[in-house]
Amino acid sequence: MGKAAVVLLSGGVDSTTTLAIARHEGFRPVTLSFDYGQRHAVELQRAAAVSRHFGVDDHRVVKIGLFGGSALTGDGQVPKGRGAAEMASGIPATYVPARNTIFLAYGLALAEVRGIGDLFIGVTAIDYSGYPDCRPEYIAAFEAMANLATRAGVEGTTRLKIHTPLICMTKAEIIRKGLELGVDYSLTHSCYDPGPDGLACGACDSCLLRLKGFREAGMEDPVAYKT
Amino acid sequence: MGKAAVVLLSGGVDSTTTLAIARHEGFRPVTLSFDYGQRHAVELQRAAAVSRHFGVDDHRVVKIGLFGGSALTGDGQVPKGRGAAEMASGIPATYVPARNTIFLAYGLALAEVRGIGDLFIGVTAIDYSGYPDCRPEYIAAFEAMANLATRAGVEGTTRLKIHTPLICMTKAEIIRKGLELGVDYSLTHSCYDPGPDGLACGACDSCLLRLKGFREAGMEDPVAYKT
Repeated sequence: MGKAAVVLLSGGVDSTTTLAIARHEGFRPVTLSFDYGQRHAVELQRAAAVSRHFGVDDHRVVKIGLFGGSALTGDGQVPKGRGAAEMASGIPATYVPARNTIFLAYGLALAEVRGIGDLFIGVTAIDYSGYPDCRPEYIAAFEAMANLATRAGVEGTTRLKIHTPLICMTKAEIIRKGLELGVDYSLTHSCYDPGPDGLACGACDSCLLRLKGFREAGMEDPVAYKT
Repeated sequence: MGKAAVVLLSGGVDSTTTLAIARHEGFRPVTLSFDYGQRHAVELQRAAAVSRHFGVDDHRVVKIGLFGGSALTGDGQVPKGRGAAEMASGIPATYVPARNTIFLAYGLALAEVRGIGDLFIGVTAIDYSGYPDCRPEYIAAFEAMANLATRAGVEGTTRLKIHTPLICMTKAEIIRKGLELGVDYSLTHSCYDPGPDGLACGACDSCLLRLKGFREAGMEDPVAYKT
């Protein structure tokens, strides 16, 4: 196996495909997931299942506090049944303040502790549901900051590179790529508001983007939905 | 009272003086402390005491996981009795990987949730014990990243400004400034390795910098030390 890389993993379509790409590029992934009191705690089980599927023997879950202010952490309703135009029209209620900054900061910390120079995150600026911290200019700024933040950055031993292999891909392209690389999407989970049985709602932005992606890829989504 | 500002507060000399400066500049501080399993958990009590002293009615403590790799979180020995040259010679064992990046990311999140545009952190590039994430170029890079990360950044409603009022001050200057502004340094705590009674060791880098600062300011440190 090649050199180690930290891969941020929620167990959804994007981060799971990112994990497959990191493996395909020859990296030995260390996966990192976050327990932040999200409604969809089932995603942590999915992240563990996906890690096992790809033979990752090092899956870390960090329990972190967030400050609320998002429908994903229980403040307000998860929007349902929105069309593409509506999703593209602003930052939705499911946005968690500074979430990717906190996630990447932890990724940076783990990379630094382990002497790892590569960090993968499955952000995408297309079909991205309007989150500010998924944009390429944000990722570039984080990478610049990270290389001033660390011992390795100062000593010049390990520079951090943030890999965003999905950033210019549509959901359909991501799914096609993942299938090519052996992703079993029945293991993944995308819903922002699953039922108590873990079944996806089929109506939140994340379910709708996922379903549209599978449709456009000409595939059937192997995950079960509430009917 | 003026507009709100998030002030990162450990309850040590630097962050407490920073809180005094934020107050003096007319801000209404919301203080933010972190419980990360540090050896010196007494600092959380000190942060609460200092917040009360300055009439702060909103002191948040976030419990966060860190990844170890530092003497401050129990990996290895806290170095003792080091001289200034030795402290300046590299990044010490007490460095916590990516700590300020994680702290600032949480500060950013809290600021965003509350619609706050000002964030104070008491970093100093002088007498700074060799931490990479205390340098002005690091802070500037974080601020640039932060303004690409958030809803407010994208929508142009609130830009985040990171205030580092101590960055060019020596410890003695910080202490003189704090006394001018009514800081009661007997409430503060700096030791990396206090005894079970909470008494400062007097020998770690942080105690030595503090003692040197008081000496150079021509003041006596009001805090008790192990003898």
